[in-house]
Amino acid sequence: MIKIAIDAMGGDFAPDEIVKGVEIARDRYPELEFQLFGTADKVRPLIQNDDRITLIPTTEEIEMGEEPVKAMKNKQDSSLVRAAQAVKEGSADALFSAGNTGAILSSAIFIVGRIKGVDRPALASAIPSFGGPNDSFVFMDLGANAENKPSHLYQYGILGSFYAQSVMGIKDPRVRLLNNGGEEDKGDETHKEAHQLMKQATAFNFLGNVESREILEGTADVVVADGFSGNAALKAMEGTALTMMDQLKDSIKLTGFRGILGALLLKPALRSLKHKMDFNEQGGAVVLGVKAPVVKTHGSAKANAVANTMGQIEKMVQEDLVGKTTAFIKENADSLKAKKIEK
Amino acid sequence: MIKIAIDAMGGDFAPDEIVKGVEIARDRYPELEFQLFGTADKVRPLIQNDDRITLIPTTEEIEMGEEPVKAMKNKQDSSLVRAAQAVKEGSADALFSAGNTGAILSSAIFIVGRIKGVDRPALASAIPSFGGPNDSFVFMDLGANAENKPSHLYQYGILGSFYAQSVMGIKDPRVRLLNNGGEEDKGDETHKEAHQLMKQATAFNFLGNVESREILEGTADVVVADGFSGNAALKAMEGTALTMMDQLKDSIKLTGFRGILGALLLKPALRSLKHKMDFNEQGGAVVLGVKAPVVKTHGSAKANAVANTMGQIEKMVQEDLVGKTTAFIKENADSLKAKKIEK
Repeated sequence: MIKIAIDAMGGDFAPDEIVKGVEIARDRYPELEFQLFGTADKVRPLIQNDDRITLIPTTEEIEMGEEPVKAMKNKQDSSLVRAAQAVKEGSADALFSAGNTGAILSSAIFIVGRIKGVDRPALASAIPSFGGPNDSFVFMDLGANAENKPSHLYQYGILGSFYAQSVMGIKDPRVRLLNNGGEEDKGDETHKEAHQLMKQATAFNFLGNVESREILEGTADVVVADGFSGNAALKAMEGTALTMMDQLKDSIKLTGFRGILGALLLKPALRSLKHKMDFNEQGGAVVLGVKAPVVKTHGSAKANAVANTMGQIEKMVQEDLVGKTTAFIKENADSLKAKKIEK
Repeated sequence: MIKIAIDAMGGDFAPDEIVKGVEIARDRYPELEFQLFGTADKVRPLIQNDDRITLIPTTEEIEMGEEPVKAMKNKQDSSLVRAAQAVKEGSADALFSAGNTGAILSSAIFIVGRIKGVDRPALASAIPSFGGPNDSFVFMDLGANAENKPSHLYQYGILGSFYAQSVMGIKDPRVRLLNNGGEEDKGDETHKEAHQLMKQATAFNFLGNVESREILEGTADVVVADGFSGNAALKAMEGTALTMMDQLKDSIKLTGFRGILGALLLKPALRSLKHKMDFNEQGGAVVLGVKAPVVKTHGSAKANAVANTMGQIEKMVQEDLVGKTTAFIKENADSLKAKKIEK
């Protein structure tokens, strides 16, 4: 049995949609067991059937707007901190939350803990890929770090490759560095140095730089970015996709009856486009580089997205992503240290 | 008369589309005079009517892939370098090119020259705005610099505000800093410090941070970014828009006859969407912070885009954008210097 510690109170529709999603997942994945950390009064009445679901009462909640590190330190009996502690103590195998991203990251790094040898855990997400051999690619760091050194970016190549292989089933993943030009001398000092480190990598298959314009075209299975520009690029893509759907709707309305008829006929095509461009449909964002799977879904996730994410977590545990990554980093500790000294 | 020095050889469709565009502009803007710098054999036969068009023969061309600074130094008789020198010497008021972006930037900075007091000229472009009070906003730096200091970002607030006021007619432009969160303590050290400098600005109207997800929503008239993440965000937006248009076409095809009929009915709506999301339709990208207007269009610009850009250049010269910016920076030299020392 795989045990998942669930922060039942985090997210815009918590605890309702979280509990609903957990029940869907329980019925769908027979190998999973769920520990619901949350305010007893609020969570207990929502549970329809407590088969493989245990409620662990907590008294505090971390809100969306709270300062992450402070919240984590001050709210020791919050659903998130208690769930992270369960993972740390080994009574659960993985952590799930739809709450405050910063607090999830802090709990992952400071409570669950970094894998020895990993300097900076990163936030990674599977993003749809259009045109390449695979349906999606791993994009990281999406904002766990505001500033990165070249050696961090090098390590992301390792972490991302293991994720693409183990969880997404991609053989020999093609790794690229997000940079503002294709040539190896492009970018600021950090990206130039990172490119040189990654070029010499034997731990993963580095194919050079990628510009954010080509990022969705399927030329990479792992796109490594510093946290600041990875976050900027991801949000720019999300914002553009939303704006375009809105603009399309407005343009259709302005075309009158003809537009409405056209839109009716195109409904399946438009729905499929909307579905493809919704980056959150692909599952949760994962904190890579910590001692257990820590996965967050979007704050606005509904029950189905929550349930899908449980499947993703099951896969991470079954494939022993963390164990494999840890063993590899331990074996290669010397060469990783050398990379740091070099730069 | 306003004299524009034209690099007739730069761009994917040069010199044909450049010359065609210049002739359209000549017929449209009676106050403009054009100096075509280019290979005589190639350019002369293209000119239909040389009213207000002078051909100035050059012998070299800078190619798209060339290393910018080296190309500029080695190809002294190239169409771009000669056109930039004409601006420097005062025989032309502004520079236009559709060629190698890096070489245009180098020519702008090293030949036309920086305005005294401006540390780092920046590449700026008008991007469509959906939902705010104005149709478009200024986005800068889009990649003139790979690395920026907080004081550069502060200066971009000044340069961008002058552009938005003079050329786009926006009163008291709302300036925001592209950052990975709304709060003032977000981002790396550079962005935190830049936020503090901009917050104290009296030279422009600073409204705080903006995330790239909201960038198209019209909450700012000037979005200031460091060159690396500005470039990453812009290209992510362009790439997403292109991918979505392609995906929509594919989805329509897969829907068969129904899809084709729907698409026919929606043709005007889809065309309007494509038009709105084509960031290059809004005119050329401008190098701000140099001693004369330097404007580049996309390499793939056709005659009409070239002609529209001439109208944009006319406005910049008529409104004396450079003169106003220079005078303001001179008057405020002491406070600008103080900003640099502070950080």
